[in-house]
Amino acid sequence: MADRITPREEDFSQWYLDVIQHAKLADQAPVRGCLVLRPNGYALWEVVQAELNRKFKETGHQNAYFPMFIPESFLNLEKDHVEGFAPQCAVVTHGGGKKLEEALIVRPTSETIINSMYSKWIKSYRDLPLLINQWANVCRWEMRTRPFLRTMEFLWQEGHTCHETEDDARKETLRMLDIYLSFVRDVFAIPVIPGKKTESEKFAGAEETYCLEAMMQDKKALQAATSHYFGQRFAKVFDIKFQDRNSQVQYVYQTSWGISWRILGALIMTHSDDQGLVLPPKAAPIQVVIVPILQKNKDNSTVLEASEKVKQAIQKNHSVHLDDRLEHSPGYKFNEYELTGIPMRVEVGPRDLANGFCVLARRDGTKTQVPLDQVGEEVTKQLADFQKALYSKASDRLTQNTHIENEYATFKEKVETLGGFYQLHWCESRKCEDKIKDDTKATIRCVPFAQIREAGKCISCGSESKGRVIFAKNY
Amino acid sequence: MADRITPREEDFSQWYLDVIQHAKLADQAPVRGCLVLRPNGYALWEVVQAELNRKFKETGHQNAYFPMFIPESFLNLEKDHVEGFAPQCAVVTHGGGKKLEEALIVRPTSETIINSMYSKWIKSYRDLPLLINQWANVCRWEMRTRPFLRTMEFLWQEGHTCHETEDDARKETLRMLDIYLSFVRDVFAIPVIPGKKTESEKFAGAEETYCLEAMMQDKKALQAATSHYFGQRFAKVFDIKFQDRNSQVQYVYQTSWGISWRILGALIMTHSDDQGLVLPPKAAPIQVVIVPILQKNKDNSTVLEASEKVKQAIQKNHSVHLDDRLEHSPGYKFNEYELTGIPMRVEVGPRDLANGFCVLARRDGTKTQVPLDQVGEEVTKQLADFQKALYSKASDRLTQNTHIENEYATFKEKVETLGGFYQLHWCESRKCEDKIKDDTKATIRCVPFAQIREAGKCISCGSESKGRVIFAKNY
Repeated sequence: MADRITPREEDFSQWYLDVIQHAKLADQAPVRGCLVLRPNGYALWEVVQAELNRKFKETGHQNAYFPMFIPESFLNLEKDHVEGFAPQCAVVTHGGGKKLEEALIVRPTSETIINSMYSKWIKSYRDLPLLINQWANVCRWEMRTRPFLRTMEFLWQEGHTCHETEDDARKETLRMLDIYLSFVRDVFAIPVIPGKKTESEKFAGAEETYCLEAMMQDKKALQAATSHYFGQRFAKVFDIKFQDRNSQVQYVYQTSWGISWRILGALIMTHSDDQGLVLPPKAAPIQVVIVPILQKNKDNSTVLEASEKVKQAIQKNHSVHLDDRLEHSPGYKFNEYELTGIPMRVEVGPRDLANGFCVLARRDGTKTQVPLDQVGEEVTKQLADFQKALYSKASDRLTQNTHIENEYATFKEKVETLGGFYQLHWCESRKCEDKIKDDTKATIRCVPFAQIREAGKCISCGSESKGRVIFAKNY
Repeated sequence: MADRITPREEDFSQWYLDVIQHAKLADQAPVRGCLVLRPNGYALWEVVQAELNRKFKETGHQNAYFPMFIPESFLNLEKDHVEGFAPQCAVVTHGGGKKLEEALIVRPTSETIINSMYSKWIKSYRDLPLLINQWANVCRWEMRTRPFLRTMEFLWQEGHTCHETEDDARKETLRMLDIYLSFVRDVFAIPVIPGKKTESEKFAGAEETYCLEAMMQDKKALQAATSHYFGQRFAKVFDIKFQDRNSQVQYVYQTSWGISWRILGALIMTHSDDQGLVLPPKAAPIQVVIVPILQKNKDNSTVLEASEKVKQAIQKNHSVHLDDRLEHSPGYKFNEYELTGIPMRVEVGPRDLANGFCVLARRDGTKTQVPLDQVGEEVTKQLADFQKALYSKASDRLTQNTHIENEYATFKEKVETLGGFYQLHWCESRKCEDKIKDDTKATIRCVPFAQIREAGKCISCGSESKGRVIFAKNY
């Protein structure tokens, strides 16, 4: 393990790996491209699960579980889908000591297996909408992997819904994007640009893909979540029909939507600093740690009693841990909790205590002396402030690094040297999209919902454009 | 779908399948031996997860996640382990369009992959105990499958811990068995016999396996959970060493323990009846359903308002659903909630309402009229009674069908015709164990902790025995 965290300025990629390692979030598995999610990392994933489960259930969704193995023939049923996923598949050819008659694919996504069940379950409009979500592991073979962002196996949730009408399905697609947006913004304090993917960037098999695009500290884009509208494409392939309110037989309209553990990568790269992980209070499994300033071979009972009282006051509203280990010095502990991103540290020392105070140290370095009898309210207030401050900082970064450009040469130079997002006019042709990608490695992250709609000329070919889209290099 | 549920007396196996189908707990997947856990079934699994996560975390365990793929060579490192699991493995031979240099096994259990990580993470006694749990899917190739009880892929949790001393590890093994016992008994209302497995029945690679054995309504045994003590066997294979308190390098002592979705099969076969699923209140995702007796084309506002008030009173302490659908008759709803096992139905009808009453109908058929202003307390009381009643009934069944036998011929006839558990003297030889199994299909379920310790003669060979062990046919 590296002794120190590489500064961001020196090597952003290495900094990212170092933060993960020192915060004990994840570790490399002995299987190429696979990740071990260590307890500190899994605790973050549990925050994602708890928050999203609450939102999913409030909006009428239910969890279920479908098999991880998909018959190879299923994947081949939808043309775009198989083209998109076949090259990424892990294939089970042997089971129980024998060669299988038909190979099984380890799910790269579950549209096919889930839709094969939906065709059995749905008969009437009374069975609709069908709103099902699954928490699962999936597998996509990757040559170049990177913790959380690109791993062969990853954890995610995938929602798959069926609706009576196109309108219902389109509303669901956007509703789920909105649920992701509020989670990512309000809990993870990550500002994002919601928008629509171009034809070339959309999900294999979808009619439309919507996404949330975030900006990391190195100014690269990261797709935080996606929501797809399928129309009746899979319904026709898997024969998912229902008798409608007028006794007519129709195909259902469908959506799917997902967020994966890559959102943990976004969390890390949005807030952390050269001292290690930084967690927004609402994302933190442990929000406050109390470090009593203990002295070896002395009577620490006053400090420990006061620390216990401080804990009582804080735990009414926050998750808190009192670290009363004697074998480690306060300095050792301060460092450990900086590395692991605990938002707030409370120091309870004999000197402050004598004056009726303790010290609150926010993970961003802000320190304040607080009267002991106000510590509960003060912690609540400061955690709320910290949550806001982290969002503001990230939001300012996004704004300040989003550029409006009209000259190709300038754009090309800036995207290479400065990075960031570029609002560019584009003629909507695949040719120009590809050319810009080949030339600059920047791709269209999305056509933002809040698009700058104005007449202009495509930055590549000069043809007419009705509005700007966002180009950026991305993870 | 079968129109009715086959009575238990007629065909217990078919009854089991019918209950699952009518309660919409699970469905057969298009992949042989795989199960789809439908929302009603997954909601039960979420109860298992929530309850066990609470107990695991209270006792200092943390969740993590390890890869589903295990290099084939890892499995081969521990001799007993590979012999036990190799014949059951699904093998990935191709990935990303290429043949792999080393095949990957889809985890049948995770000892090997997890221990390979532990050897990196553990250096000192300060890193111990290491108490990690994983919720995951695993795959064991099965030729004859049965929903929940025997499926190719299944969901489970597996805990894997490391300790400084043998004593610590042994205590952990039993502590976790005790956690399972209290969960199975207090939440699922399933009485079990805790005990130890014989050499031939223990987990492949374990030094000792402990288990909980339950009795289903057909008098067959079902293993509800297991906890294993490994000693230093895997530690030596995977080189998991630590510096102890005296600066000596030692191997850790280990345990693992697990419960799978087969516990849902046990839940179904313990309590359900010929009308469908029966859920103990503490196991039920929805404990109470309110059915207002509505009339089409009439003003139902009084009944609906009263139903809403009843809901308010109940939801303080229980999960409750008010089913105010007009398109289905009360009778249709009564039937639906019987099939799906809701413990308590509250009927709110105009006639009772006029007298200030509503009707509580417990899933076992007990009906009572209750004054509206007492409905909250009364529901709480009756649910608690119902929970107890279900446990008592199952416990009586277990007691009444556990027989002490000394004559082989009598045992052989009874186990064939009556089923049940048999307390038999056994000489501790593998030969007699195998002979009895070949002869009667009954196996040693466990050496119970509350063993009848007395001198006797092995029921098979007549050699000396110091105590009785439990034989039964099992799932």
